[in-house]
Amino acid sequence: MARMMRAAAFIEKGRIELVDKPIPDVGPNDALMRITTTTICGTDIHILKGEYPVAPGLTIGHEPVGVIEKLGSAVQGYREGQRVIAGAICPNFNSYAAQDGVPSQDGSYLIPEGKCGAHGYKATAGWRFGNWIDGTQAEYVLVPDAEANLAPIPDGLTDTQVLMCPDIMSTGFKGAENANIRIGDTVVVFAQGPIGLCATAGARLLGATTIIAVDGNNHRLDIARQLGADVALNFREVDVVEEVMKLTGGKGADGSIEALGTQATFAQAMKVLRPGGTLSSLGVYSEDLHIPLEQFASGLGDHTIRTALCPGGKERMRRLMNVIAANRLDLGLMVTHERGLDDIVEAYDLFANQRDGVLKIAIIP
Amino acid sequence: MARMMRAAAFIEKGRIELVDKPIPDVGPNDALMRITTTTICGTDIHILKGEYPVAPGLTIGHEPVGVIEKLGSAVQGYREGQRVIAGAICPNFNSYAAQDGVPSQDGSYLIPEGKCGAHGYKATAGWRFGNWIDGTQAEYVLVPDAEANLAPIPDGLTDTQVLMCPDIMSTGFKGAENANIRIGDTVVVFAQGPIGLCATAGARLLGATTIIAVDGNNHRLDIARQLGADVALNFREVDVVEEVMKLTGGKGADGSIEALGTQATFAQAMKVLRPGGTLSSLGVYSEDLHIPLEQFASGLGDHTIRTALCPGGKERMRRLMNVIAANRLDLGLMVTHERGLDDIVEAYDLFANQRDGVLKIAIIP
Amino acid sequence: MARMMRAAAFIEKGRIELVDKPIPDVGPNDALMRITTTTICGTDIHILKGEYPVAPGLTIGHEPVGVIEKLGSAVQGYREGQRVIAGAICPNFNSYAAQDGVPSQDGSYLIPEGKCGAHGYKATAGWRFGNWIDGTQAEYVLVPDAEANLAPIPDGLTDTQVLMCPDIMSTGFKGAENANIRIGDTVVVFAQGPIGLCATAGARLLGATTIIAVDGNNHRLDIARQLGADVALNFREVDVVEEVMKLTGGKGADGSIEALGTQATFAQAMKVLRPGGTLSSLGVYSEDLHIPLEQFASGLGDHTIRTALCPGGKERMRRLMNVIAANRLDLGLMVTHERGLDDIVEAYDLFANQRDGVLKIAIIP
Amino acid sequence: MARMMRAAAFIEKGRIELVDKPIPDVGPNDALMRITTTTICGTDIHILKGEYPVAPGLTIGHEPVGVIEKLGSAVQGYREGQRVIAGAICPNFNSYAAQDGVPSQDGSYLIPEGKCGAHGYKATAGWRFGNWIDGTQAEYVLVPDAEANLAPIPDGLTDTQVLMCPDIMSTGFKGAENANIRIGDTVVVFAQGPIGLCATAGARLLGATTIIAVDGNNHRLDIARQLGADVALNFREVDVVEEVMKLTGGKGADGSIEALGTQATFAQAMKVLRPGGTLSSLGVYSEDLHIPLEQFASGLGDHTIRTALCPGGKERMRRLMNVIAANRLDLGLMVTHERGLDDIVEAYDLFANQRDGVLKIAIIP
Repeated sequence: MARMMRAAAFIEKGRIELVDKPIPDVGPNDALMRITTTTICGTDIHILKGEYPVAPGLTIGHEPVGVIEKLGSAVQGYREGQRVIAGAICPNFNSYAAQDGVPSQDGSYLIPEGKCGAHGYKATAGWRFGNWIDGTQAEYVLVPDAEANLAPIPDGLTDTQVLMCPDIMSTGFKGAENANIRIGDTVVVFAQGPIGLCATAGARLLGATTIIAVDGNNHRLDIARQLGADVALNFREVDVVEEVMKLTGGKGADGSIEALGTQATFAQAMKVLRPGGTLSSLGVYSEDLHIPLEQFASGLGDHTIRTALCPGGKERMRRLMNVIAANRLDLGLMVTHERGLDDIVEAYDLFANQRDGVLKIAIIP
Repeated sequence: MARMMRAAAFIEKGRIELVDKPIPDVGPNDALMRITTTTICGTDIHILKGEYPVAPGLTIGHEPVGVIEKLGSAVQGYREGQRVIAGAICPNFNSYAAQDGVPSQDGSYLIPEGKCGAHGYKATAGWRFGNWIDGTQAEYVLVPDAEANLAPIPDGLTDTQVLMCPDIMSTGFKGAENANIRIGDTVVVFAQGPIGLCATAGARLLGATTIIAVDGNNHRLDIARQLGADVALNFREVDVVEEVMKLTGGKGADGSIEALGTQATFAQAMKVLRPGGTLSSLGVYSEDLHIPLEQFASGLGDHTIRTALCPGGKERMRRLMNVIAANRLDLGLMVTHERGLDDIVEAYDLFANQRDGVLKIAIIP
Repeated sequence: MARMMRAAAFIEKGRIELVDKPIPDVGPNDALMRITTTTICGTDIHILKGEYPVAPGLTIGHEPVGVIEKLGSAVQGYREGQRVIAGAICPNFNSYAAQDGVPSQDGSYLIPEGKCGAHGYKATAGWRFGNWIDGTQAEYVLVPDAEANLAPIPDGLTDTQVLMCPDIMSTGFKGAENANIRIGDTVVVFAQGPIGLCATAGARLLGATTIIAVDGNNHRLDIARQLGADVALNFREVDVVEEVMKLTGGKGADGSIEALGTQATFAQAMKVLRPGGTLSSLGVYSEDLHIPLEQFASGLGDHTIRTALCPGGKERMRRLMNVIAANRLDLGLMVTHERGLDDIVEAYDLFANQRDGVLKIAIIP
Repeated sequence: MARMMRAAAFIEKGRIELVDKPIPDVGPNDALMRITTTTICGTDIHILKGEYPVAPGLTIGHEPVGVIEKLGSAVQGYREGQRVIAGAICPNFNSYAAQDGVPSQDGSYLIPEGKCGAHGYKATAGWRFGNWIDGTQAEYVLVPDAEANLAPIPDGLTDTQVLMCPDIMSTGFKGAENANIRIGDTVVVFAQGPIGLCATAGARLLGATTIIAVDGNNHRLDIARQLGADVALNFREVDVVEEVMKLTGGKGADGSIEALGTQATFAQAMKVLRPGGTLSSLGVYSEDLHIPLEQFASGLGDHTIRTALCPGGKERMRRLMNVIAANRLDLGLMVTHERGLDDIVEAYDLFANQRDGVLKIAIIP
């Protein structure tokens, strides 16, 4: 008889519950990971609210820190008992999409269900945990394509220190990488939630010299300053576009990063840009976006707009953990709360309502 | 007393007229060019219709082929009597914007009038001929920053052969360059007017292997096939998005190029893209653009949208003329009509109404 | 009892023989491919001569065209009986090196033998067929990491048409891709053997407009012209560096491609370059290279030197076969001879001695 | 009668002297700069020793900080009395080479003397001060192409703070930029003289997380640590290649930067690289370089070697001064000594003999 484990499952709109599930079997390319720490993401809240549909009964969560419990027969280069993380996005790196440079957009494993285009491209399908397959808010999670996705944790780093790597840091940094930052640039980062804060930190790490963080919450703006912002603007207090223009003498920013997912911030991210600038978008939008004509120079401004889904894979995770290990950045300060897996329903409530200055909650099974 | 010349001037909405003007004086960094051939651009039609404002009395036109009549005292590397072209966009390559990689977005010479941001960035201001200064539909034109902008015509090339280089070819090719084309790619080009045709030809030159040209005019689609399209789709006969999906097995195109400037073609250019694809936009839009949410993958599709204004400068022109000289491409076939400068009012009428299969009209002063 | 097959094995320096071997077993991520056509590479001659060491008894050859005989249990997206090719380089795309952009440099599967650096990087170790594992000059070959490496042949293409894709075309095109070619460039390709010819064709496909092919054999120079060279120089008849300088007015070429592997051609490839140019090297050298100081501008010339090992993987193969399918290029003309597998010893002799105008020999098991 | 000024001129091998020269006339595109601070470069020592030939009588030096004394009639965007710097390399940004992306390699102004290739490319000719024209170790210097090259000093920055920008910082940072650094990389910087120190600081600014500084001088290694090195290796105490391999588990570094100009450091910079890594070379070599065959993987290692000459231009200078203004870096600590222009002969002696812990000497006219 299968051994059982506890897991947080989506039941129906508005309801996530702890349930018992069998610990999954391990195929030749899989690994079973015992979760030691995981966390709740803004996306999980969308799932809870029924705004993003997943199958009822699915275990949710996609940010795993843990220990290898069991390795598939064909997985090379790891040992059971090793501390590892895996990216929120666990791509099949054998796929056409991955070999073509966009592993996050691969859905090759969905082909039997006929949901993909030729060669298996399907937007965002590289995100599997808590989306297409059981996720990480559980005692155990099955990691597919384990040899590509398991990333050993460097000695000396705690679970809390690496908890942001699988999603928040990888996404935020990708926002900075996509903004085409060069030494001496001015970059504006809209919204200083966990991902925006990481985009701010990433912009710093890449050599921008005027980093302008925008939010409506002064506490978050303080953290932004700690993580590298040179200027912090509270949009409730100043006109952000006007302020950026003042700071740049009317030229505009070289790059802007949208980290919220609203029309308003997207439009502002375009309005602060200089001709030739790059808008790097991280937000998940819920309706057609409008591009403001004037600041878009009617389409003649040599602008770039770039979007991204969180990059995954063991090499990405290795690099991000290097950043932590080298003391370039302390993302532990984002983990403001800690709860047991048994208290996850309450943790969702806390996180969804953004009470108590919460940024991220460590969930300990 | 100043010598006089004939020039086509914008008088008021709906009216362009041939007028007499003094032949301009030549400053130290200028060159006076005697026009031997020029042409009319779609943008000139917008000016004629009052849709794009220029100062009454301004000579219009921005596509010069001619001979150096007189060189400024500080201009090195040319001789009077030399056959040359200049780009439609004549940037100041000393500017911050040019040194920063976006010469077309420089407005440094406008600073005294206070129209620029710090360092002189101003969207599209690199376009001077027939916009900020007198243009090329005249017997003579004054070329500013001549050392940066005059490009000698290789021996053996006719005026007609190089007439597309200053604007149409430079713009269309930039559209292809911005589409991030790699060997083996599928690229869809929306609209096969002169610029779209050049984008099609550029995609071919860069190694795309499935080039899909879209237009509503079968004659233009025929020309597209001659210039390199593998597939030609008449949007009046087929559902373009559906057809592209069929041709790519549901995957979508690697790149798309918008060469018309409408919401409809922009949206289609997004809808045909695979996740991770690039939309290269060349159109001049007249209202806020909407980005269709689903095909934009709610902002998570690793998409890139890139816009451009025609690149200028002598090095750009040299490279484009190389393409013609090397027989990679015959753009002479786009020059369907020829008129004297004296007949330019009639030529505008012909071009504006797209009569008689007109693509481009050579105007001979 | 294991079924047996015929295979060309390296026995000792100077001796390759047809031997009988068991048809290999198929692990979960493998595929067994029945070879319908393969060929002999210059590298195989180095092996034959004992200049490149492989284990005695190893089946050699690395350019497979065939049919899937049997799929491993975990390989998705293929069916037995499907016509496929695989790259000469069959990387493990789960590896750090592959995720880091250099799949050809992965040796992760060698880790148990301790031959790799951390994370499995080992120069050229991505080349497995006929190097670390049994190769393709046999009735069957076992393809490792099959889901990443098997590339279905498009309908309508013959074995001969795609025979160059696994190695020659992938390598030659990479040479062109590494030369940083932009529209209008001048590129010099040194040596017009099979790989150099593909580099010439690749330079054409990427928009170079003055392609200068160099060789000492006029027949090969003729083929170079057919495949896209604008100028062909026989180094026995002209001073190549002098000639390139003449053709470029003393400026030098924008890019050069070395496709032979000698100090002399490498030095020339540097000497023809303009300041700021790129030397793309494909050759396999047998001694320390010297970089000529003067043309290297003492290290101050903004030069780039880039090397490459043939890229593999199914996406690369798909793109290359697209080029063939789109009629951009006919590489069938390189296949000058055909032999049965039983005659492979004689074929080696023919190829090694470059008799009878041989370029490539199709070997048919 | 011309007003006179004091200037340090090269007289003959081994002899630099203070002489009187007329203050130069100002042409339409020039600016006359009154030097307030300049410095001596290693290159000047080569000139002094006769190892790099310049015309006898030429004023040497190429690192100007000062005040605009007089502007040419055609120079826009500045005012007399403004504090400015100019790059050591003062390119003509109108040139083909500059428009083609390599302004430092332009020699367009030398064309009358016939020293350039077509379009004016000539390796390193963008370096004019103290090479082709009178330099900066004087009371005044004439800045050619002034509109492209004069960079206003931000309010609040001292001469000393920006003294490294024209050459040392621009060169060192270019070394880091050319090393293709990504977040999480390991980079080794060979030699921690002023340029190597700036390369170390640049690698830090660009997101490398394991920066290994190499030198034989522990004092310089200490400064390297202050400027961002994670590890400092004294090559007199350890085997550097072995140590880097140990630190990277045998994988090798992602990038290496050569900042000395010897065969030994160049070879080591290759030997520490992983397959696929980039060697960024800044050194000025005095003989043909050898590339070690084994670590070059016989030419099959997907390696890149890139060289550079210091980038110039006002936009580059602006960005570098931004780095100082934003307190990302204090390069003032490199200015270890200060001398009057009258004492420049003694200053040369001090600098050439590297006495007294000298790194850079501020020269105050």
